[in-house]
Amino acid sequence: MRSTFHRGAIAALLALIPTLAGCAATGSDAASRALVQPGMTVLFQGDSITDAGRNREVGDANDPRGLGRGYASLAAAGLLMDAAPRDVFVHNRGVSGNKVFQLAERWDADCLELRPDVVSILIGVNDIWHTKNGNYDGTVAIYERDYDALLTRTRTALPDVKLVVCEPFVLRCGAIDDSWFPEFDEYRAAARRVAAAHGAVFVPFQQMFDDALAQAPAEHWARDGVHPSMAGAALMAKTWLATVQGR
Amino acid sequence: MRSTFHRGAIAALLALIPTLAGCAATGSDAASRALVQPGMTVLFQGDSITDAGRNREVGDANDPRGLGRGYASLAAAGLLMDAAPRDVFVHNRGVSGNKVFQLAERWDADCLELRPDVVSILIGVNDIWHTKNGNYDGTVAIYERDYDALLTRTRTALPDVKLVVCEPFVLRCGAIDDSWFPEFDEYRAAARRVAAAHGAVFVPFQQMFDDALAQAPAEHWARDGVHPSMAGAALMAKTWLATVQGR
Repeated sequence: MRSTFHRGAIAALLALIPTLAGCAATGSDAASRALVQPGMTVLFQGDSITDAGRNREVGDANDPRGLGRGYASLAAAGLLMDAAPRDVFVHNRGVSGNKVFQLAERWDADCLELRPDVVSILIGVNDIWHTKNGNYDGTVAIYERDYDALLTRTRTALPDVKLVVCEPFVLRCGAIDDSWFPEFDEYRAAARRVAAAHGAVFVPFQQMFDDALAQAPAEHWARDGVHPSMAGAALMAKTWLATVQGR
Repeated sequence: MRSTFHRGAIAALLALIPTLAGCAATGSDAASRALVQPGMTVLFQGDSITDAGRNREVGDANDPRGLGRGYASLAAAGLLMDAAPRDVFVHNRGVSGNKVFQLAERWDADCLELRPDVVSILIGVNDIWHTKNGNYDGTVAIYERDYDALLTRTRTALPDVKLVVCEPFVLRCGAIDDSWFPEFDEYRAAARRVAAAHGAVFVPFQQMFDDALAQAPAEHWARDGVHPSMAGAALMAKTWLATVQGR
């Protein structure tokens, strides 16, 4: 009888161990697995979601004025706090309205010349949006071809670069209606394929926002369905740090 | 023999439970103990460390342009993310260069009229700094008297208000030399006494930065000894959220 009790108690306690291990993994194990290591230069690239009101006259790394007011700035704060005693050197070169071909047009000055160790890219929503509103003539195939070429060019110029591809996302409110689907899902799938082809870390922002709908409606996270609220940006930074840094 | 093994195994597993409980406390227990609850209005007040380049033309709650680029903005992001599905309504009214009497001069417009549920104040470094450089004629006693009067006035006008008093801090580098001590420590002690007298939550920023010197030198956290770097601001936001929200 007592032996049976003991076995049951041990089984119950053992069942708790994975939870405990998951908790402990936020410590030094996670630090050693992190993609961004102290001393590295990190570049955030993309469109208005990355840009987020940054001061484009400020080019120095880690200057909050140059990092904007979005997920990139919040992720940078976490990277900088964690890197002590050293620094990381974070740049934001997101430009509002950009599509993937427009990243390519300014890639020498706004990526390669910065010699980043890590490049994180969030691009795609304008490739479909500007096509839908008649200001661009894009397709999923063009997006995937241009994105693939951009990453090939990056890896050729910077053979040791580590890449992060962030999933384009929308929330079903504001500017986003049913006419975006299923085409938008194909852009997301293309970004995932490009990430896999280049060994990039993939940050699943669409899945993250889909899951967040269990907590709050779409408008809470991005009033117009595209540009995150501060709550949405904070959630993105948390997910970026969890995915890229194991934080 | 087997029974002995069982007892030993159970004891070892039970020893892990407190760690597990500590991990689990970051969940709903912490949420219920948090000072800032969903739906509340939160005001950050202070000097340049709080101001942190906010756009003073932007008065709306939760507008990142109006929240600046410092600890208040980073703490706001955490508050907003955690409050889902509801919002909190965060204002920043820090003004660079302010001493405690200057908060009092603008307290009707920049605090009471906003009807905040929670007021967080970080003030004091200019009360000593501007006295040392000849631009003010302050003392610890004047600081404590003015600070106490400000909190009395706040509680009289807003009987249900919850107060957060942040400890003034300096790091020993840049503008900070030995001539600041022990007087600066007396300003810190005065802030702690005022917090206790008014039942305010006290955020121990000096202790936090003193502890952070084990990770990185003073300049890493605040190059001039007064104004935090992005890493310093991120550490402050983390400590603010841990102290005020149990996060």
